[in-house]
Amino acid sequence: MKKIAILEGDGIGPEAMAEGIKVLKVIEARNDITFDLVHAPFGATAWFSHGSSFPEETKKLVDEADAVIKGPIGLSHEESKQIPVDEQPERGALLPMRARMNTYANYRPVFLPKALAHFSPLKPEIIGEGIDLIMVRELVGGVYFGKKERGVNAEGKRYVTEALEYDEDQIRNILVKAFDLAMTRKKVLHNIHKSNVLKSSVLWNEVLEEVKVDYPEVEVIHMLVDAAATHLCLNPTQFDVMVMENMFGDILSDQGGGILGSLGLMPSACIGPNSAYYEPSHGSAPDIAGKGIANPYSLIGSFAMMLEYSFDMKEESKNIWDAMQAVFAAGFSTSDLSKPGSGVTMLSTSEFGDKVVEYL
Amino acid sequence: MKKIAILEGDGIGPEAMAEGIKVLKVIEARNDITFDLVHAPFGATAWFSHGSSFPEETKKLVDEADAVIKGPIGLSHEESKQIPVDEQPERGALLPMRARMNTYANYRPVFLPKALAHFSPLKPEIIGEGIDLIMVRELVGGVYFGKKERGVNAEGKRYVTEALEYDEDQIRNILVKAFDLAMTRKKVLHNIHKSNVLKSSVLWNEVLEEVKVDYPEVEVIHMLVDAAATHLCLNPTQFDVMVMENMFGDILSDQGGGILGSLGLMPSACIGPNSAYYEPSHGSAPDIAGKGIANPYSLIGSFAMMLEYSFDMKEESKNIWDAMQAVFAAGFSTSDLSKPGSGVTMLSTSEFGDKVVEYL
Ligand SMILES: CC(C)[C@H](C(=O)O)[C@@H](O)C(=O)O
Ligand SMILES: CC(C)[C@H](C(=O)O)[C@@H](O)C(=O)O
Repeated sequence: MKKIAILEGDGIGPEAMAEGIKVLKVIEARNDITFDLVHAPFGATAWFSHGSSFPEETKKLVDEADAVIKGPIGLSHEESKQIPVDEQPERGALLPMRARMNTYANYRPVFLPKALAHFSPLKPEIIGEGIDLIMVRELVGGVYFGKKERGVNAEGKRYVTEALEYDEDQIRNILVKAFDLAMTRKKVLHNIHKSNVLKSSVLWNEVLEEVKVDYPEVEVIHMLVDAAATHLCLNPTQFDVMVMENMFGDILSDQGGGILGSLGLMPSACIGPNSAYYEPSHGSAPDIAGKGIANPYSLIGSFAMMLEYSFDMKEESKNIWDAMQAVFAAGFSTSDLSKPGSGVTMLSTSEFGDKVVEYL
Repeated sequence: MKKIAILEGDGIGPEAMAEGIKVLKVIEARNDITFDLVHAPFGATAWFSHGSSFPEETKKLVDEADAVIKGPIGLSHEESKQIPVDEQPERGALLPMRARMNTYANYRPVFLPKALAHFSPLKPEIIGEGIDLIMVRELVGGVYFGKKERGVNAEGKRYVTEALEYDEDQIRNILVKAFDLAMTRKKVLHNIHKSNVLKSSVLWNEVLEEVKVDYPEVEVIHMLVDAAATHLCLNPTQFDVMVMENMFGDILSDQGGGILGSLGLMPSACIGPNSAYYEPSHGSAPDIAGKGIANPYSLIGSFAMMLEYSFDMKEESKNIWDAMQAVFAAGFSTSDLSKPGSGVTMLSTSEFGDKVVEYL
C-alpha cells in the first residue's frame, strides 16, 4: 500500500491529472500493489479557496506520502496579481515544497523517439535516430534559494541583490546522482557550467574532479552553458546525461521542450533523500483549461517516472512510455503538437488517456 | 579620421580580422572617411607575450579610440590552465574591458534571411520568411559583476556565494536602449525575465512600467526566460526586439546562434555612453586556427555594426550585410555551415572576404 499525494494544481492540472490516475489504475489492477490516492489543495486555486497556496493540510500530506504527483500551477497574469508576490504559487508553494522535501535532484528527460520526431521543429537530419537525453538539474540551491535583499542605496536608488550560492555538499550530491545515472546509460556525462565567469562553477568543477575518481568508466565532457544552448539546437543527439545547476537547468530544460515540439512532452522527477515528487515541466495553460484539449502526456509520464524512481517498477514504467509512443505512432496527436488538418487524428485529453489505457 | 583599436584576440581571431579589415578598406576608399587602424595585444596570446591578457598599452588605446573591434579570445583548455584563473582572458581581459568602457548595451542580431535559411537546424516551415530579431542584453551588471566570495563555512565545507545585483539606473538604461530600438523597428518589445523567482526581475519589471510610459506606441510582451528558450525553438519569428539581463542574454543569444546554424553568423555590438566595441559572439576555435577555414562573417558583421552604431554609416553597413548574404545566395558556404559534398562551394576565410569585396 503506497500513499500518493495528488496535487492537481491550477489550470489544466485537474483534467490532465485525471488521465494520469486513469493510467495508474491499470497498473494497480495488474500488480501486487495498492495506491492510496489522497487529493490536497496546492497552487493559486488553493490560495483563493484555502487562503494559502501551500495549506497546512497539504504540507502534512506531503510529509507522510510515499510519493507526490503535482500538476502545473499558476493562473492568468490578471488573477495572479491579486495574490501578494511572496504567496504566488511559485514562491508560496512550489519552491517551499522543493525546500521542504529537499528534492535536490531534478531529472528531466528530453525524449524524442522516431514516432514523435515529426513534432520537433528540428530537421529530420538533425534528429536522426531520435533524441534521448536526460538533464539532471540541481533543484534546491543556487540563486533560487540564496538570500535576497531589496533596498534603496546611498544615492537613493532602488536595488536588488540576490545570492547565487553553492557549497561542496550540494554540488557533490547532485554530481553523484548524475554519475550514477550515466553509469546506467552510455557512461558519458556532459558537465554544463560557466566557469569562465562564475566562481560557483569553478568550485563545481573542482568537486567534479573529486567525484569523478569514483567513476573511472564515465567520460566527462565539459561544456559552457552558452555553448550547450547552441549545441542543443545544432546537434542534440550528442548528449546523453547532462548535469547543471538550478537556473541553467531551468532554461536549458525548457529549450529541451522546444526541441521536442512542446513542453507537453516533458514530465520530470524531483528526488529528495527521503521522498520525491513528480511534475510536468509545462505551465498550467489557463487559456485552455477546462476545454478538454490539454495534452496529458507529461502528467501521465510523471506517473511513469514515479513508478520507476519511487517504487522500482521499471517495467511498468516503460510500458506506459511505450503505450504513449504507440498512440502517436498510430497517427494520433494532441492539439499542442500539430495543427488540425495536418493528416493526424486529434485526441482530446481524455481520449488520449483512453488510448494509452488501450495500448497498456 | 577615426581611430579604430584592432584587438585580434586568439585562435582564429587574426585570420578573421584580416577579412574584416579588407572589407573596411573598400568602405574607406569610397567614402569621405579615414580609418586609423591601431593593433594591440589582447587575450590569452597577450598573456603569454606581454604577461597580461589586457596590457596597459591596450587599455590606453581602448580609452582613446573612436571604436574598438575585438576578435574572439581563449586558447585550448590545456593552454588556458597555465594562466591563473583571474588572469584568464575572460576574467582578465574581456570583463574588465566591458567594465572599463561601460558597454552596458549589447546588441546581438539573430538574422536569418532566406538566403541563409538552409543553414538552420530548424524546419523551413518554422523559419518561414526568415528570422530577424535583435537581443538587447545588459552587459555590465548582474551576476557577472556582483561581489563573489569563496570560503569555508562553519561545518568546514567549501562554498561560493556570488551576487546577482541590479539597481534601477542600470535597468532603466538598458530598457531605454531596447525601447528606442523597438521604435525604429516593429514597435514590439519582448521583455524576458524570471519574476516568479528572481527579485531582480521584479524590480526590472517595475522599472519597465515606468520607462514604458514614454513609449506609448511600443507593445510590451512579457515572457519568462525559460518560456523564451522554448519559443525561440518553436516559433522564433514571433520576436523582433528582446531585452534581458546579462546571464539570460548570454544563454539565449547562443541559442540564437544555434538557430542560425552557427555562432559564426553572430556579430555583436557592445555600446557604452562614450564609446563602443564590436565582437563576434563565437569563440576563438583554437582547433581550426591558422587553417584558413574560419568563417569571417561575424567579424565582418562586427565591422558593419561599427559603421552603423559608431559612425552613423547605416547605408554602407547595410551594403556589407547585403554583400555577405549575396555570397551565400550565390551558393557559397564556409566550413562551419555546411558539410562538404552538399552541393555548395566551400570558401576559405580569405576567399569569403574576397567575395564580399567583390559584391560590395
Ligand atoms: C515555476 C518555476 C518556479 C519553475 C522553476 O523555475 O524552477 C519552473 O519553471 C520549472 O522549471 O519547474
Ligand atoms: C567569454 C564570455 C565571458 C562571454 C560572456 O559570457 O559574456 C561570452 O560568452 C559572450 O557571450 O560574450
